[in-house]
Amino acid sequence: MTVPQHLVLSMDTGVDDALALAYLVASDAHIVGVSATYGNVLQQQAARNTRTVLAMLGRADVPVSDGARHPSWAPMFVADAGCARFHGRNGLADLRIGVCATPKERPGLVIASDDDGVVTLSAADVGALIRQGHAISVGGYPVGDPHAELPTIPEFFTRAGLATPEKLGFPDEDCSPMTDGARLIVDAARRYGDALTIVATGPLTDVDVALRADPDAVRRARIVFMGGTLTQEGNCYDLVCETNVLQDPEAADRVLRAHADTTMIGLDVTHRCLLGPADVARWLAGEGEAGACKRRHVAFLLASLANFSIRANRASDPIFAAGMPLHDPLAAAVALDPSLVTTFDLPMIVETRTGDGVGVRGRTIGDPRAALDDATDTHVALGVDGAGFVRRFTDAIAGFLASLG
Amino acid sequence: MTVPQHLVLSMDTGVDDALALAYLVASDAHIVGVSATYGNVLQQQAARNTRTVLAMLGRADVPVSDGARHPSWAPMFVADAGCARFHGRNGLADLRIGVCATPKERPGLVIASDDDGVVTLSAADVGALIRQGHAISVGGYPVGDPHAELPTIPEFFTRAGLATPEKLGFPDEDCSPMTDGARLIVDAARRYGDALTIVATGPLTDVDVALRADPDAVRRARIVFMGGTLTQEGNCYDLVCETNVLQDPEAADRVLRAHADTTMIGLDVTHRCLLGPADVARWLAGEGEAGACKRRHVAFLLASLANFSIRANRASDPIFAAGMPLHDPLAAAVALDPSLVTTFDLPMIVETRTGDGVGVRGRTIGDPRAALDDATDTHVALGVDGAGFVRRFTDAIAGFLASLG
Repeated sequence: MTVPQHLVLSMDTGVDDALALAYLVASDAHIVGVSATYGNVLQQQAARNTRTVLAMLGRADVPVSDGARHPSWAPMFVADAGCARFHGRNGLADLRIGVCATPKERPGLVIASDDDGVVTLSAADVGALIRQGHAISVGGYPVGDPHAELPTIPEFFTRAGLATPEKLGFPDEDCSPMTDGARLIVDAARRYGDALTIVATGPLTDVDVALRADPDAVRRARIVFMGGTLTQEGNCYDLVCETNVLQDPEAADRVLRAHADTTMIGLDVTHRCLLGPADVARWLAGEGEAGACKRRHVAFLLASLANFSIRANRASDPIFAAGMPLHDPLAAAVALDPSLVTTFDLPMIVETRTGDGVGVRGRTIGDPRAALDDATDTHVALGVDGAGFVRRFTDAIAGFLASLG
Repeated sequence: MTVPQHLVLSMDTGVDDALALAYLVASDAHIVGVSATYGNVLQQQAARNTRTVLAMLGRADVPVSDGARHPSWAPMFVADAGCARFHGRNGLADLRIGVCATPKERPGLVIASDDDGVVTLSAADVGALIRQGHAISVGGYPVGDPHAELPTIPEFFTRAGLATPEKLGFPDEDCSPMTDGARLIVDAARRYGDALTIVATGPLTDVDVALRADPDAVRRARIVFMGGTLTQEGNCYDLVCETNVLQDPEAADRVLRAHADTTMIGLDVTHRCLLGPADVARWLAGEGEAGACKRRHVAFLLASLANFSIRANRASDPIFAAGMPLHDPLAAAVALDPSLVTTFDLPMIVETRTGDGVGVRGRTIGDPRAALDDATDTHVALGVDGAGFVRRFTDAIAGFLASLG
């Protein structure tokens, strides 16, 4: 069933991105390269995590490029405090791999990144930036929004009147520069044409930049992204939006309107693919016996990543009692085998404003202006054999571990 | 393709309900009876409109019963000011049929209905009722909500702090009494069993009451309702909710969880079935020639109803440039021929609260707790041949008119 494809990845490498990488390596996929983006963690941490995971999987040869450090609507980004709960402070379940690339947060200080790199901001710095009209994204919410949680500087989320999203004004134009990561995507598209699949498991900022840099080339590639939700509740505070899309709604909206062959792997399907403790235990089976050191090491790390997420998800919502949703692994797997999901073809948009007559910022929904037009390049995954995919995923990892000797 | 069925209808008869009745009569459907509910207009007006339309169609024999006069969460109802724009003040395009059953609104006074009948309220009355803890629904919004527009008493929607929805507290228990309309549904279900289809084109208040009055009997019937939206923007202020469901989210939620065979005909499909002026003109073709007086009269009235809605929709949104959406006629037609739409099986809920962690009051969405369970009785219409249905609808009406001689 596997379609031979060249893959270029855009990842904000946390736990499930790492598991997606493991699945792709286990499947012998041809990974042209990985663009590391902000999202679950700062871009710098995502790049480090990506390299760490690839090295662990024996694929240190895969090139990793620096992608976007902030969404298109804000020149500065802070990782959401909630992400640490699901991915660990370092994005890799706080395991002592992928040593923290960013300074440790301390009371009164917040760690952010702009295009130039990591910066440590005091409350006074944050206040001054906002007064100067700079937007700071905290996991998709602008500082001043009550959901932009800055635990180290609590005054900036308890004083919600400081700077509302309306006052900050999400720009009509974007402030995304070309990045090495976006260039990696463009170059891959030029080289592989329609034999390329772009797999995005984080915000769509770099895919958007790539599409605008060379629309003709990049539009020939197939895009599979993990993000959005159409028929299920969202995973953001409002239960309407999904995290990856909320990070950069403008970029996601442009990607969905770019007339590329795009498959959305949203919560509609990922919430049905729950990896449980018993599945993970299989990877460790026989670990007590004599086994290759490498195999035992990799099995332990992958199982630790998964178990961290399983515990975090179970604690967060009863719907995850059975396990962690395989968000990013499903998107990666669909890139290799589209038959894993059934899709509904629908021209889609992302709403970028909140309020009467404009919808909810970050919501993925049908394009009302296209309702009478049957033709679309957007395929929304609505059906999946969840248990079947979890089995396939678990088997693939187990097989890979066995191959390590 | 037509499935022989006995139909019982629940309608808040405005323009498209009237066109749905015309389609059913034209199709020789067996209409057991109609329960007239509040919604587009007050219940009293809906009952009168239903009788007027049935008489016009030569079917004065169909029984019409009084259904709910208010949603389950509020003991008093005021028709939304916006409804008059799409249906006319009398619900029938302000034609001199269905003479106004309710007193005319005047500055300083608002016309409402409770279980006992129509009442005229002054600003002081409204204030006193709210202070006593009575909720008044204005087209689904409680007085005190900025969207509960009372143009004749503007102070009650400009002073939004008067009584917020939170303060009013949507009840956990319902305040819907058994009505003659709900009893009509129960009786039909007991008599016809699974050969009955309940077609609801207004709020689901009476269907909910019927389901709870005799779950075993009513659950055997098939339910087809016009309402909700899953993959398209809503038609309420927030673009999230659909009007019929917003009127009584608690009732709609109970219906969707009642384990009846339920088909949702929402904006996903109705917005793709646009009846345009050229379609309507066919009904009037040859009108100038000698024709039966009856035929000319009915053709003129149906065309006037449709043209009123076509104009109103065109003025409201560019997506309706081509015509009026055939909301209720499509639901009626699907009751006779399920093959008109393709459906997606999904356990659904209606969110009943607005805010962090609870969603958006009135939103129709997948039930997150049921995501791993494939079995469901809820079928959401997502696909329709819009042009094909408009043609079928137009032909049916034209054929009916021709049959009048």
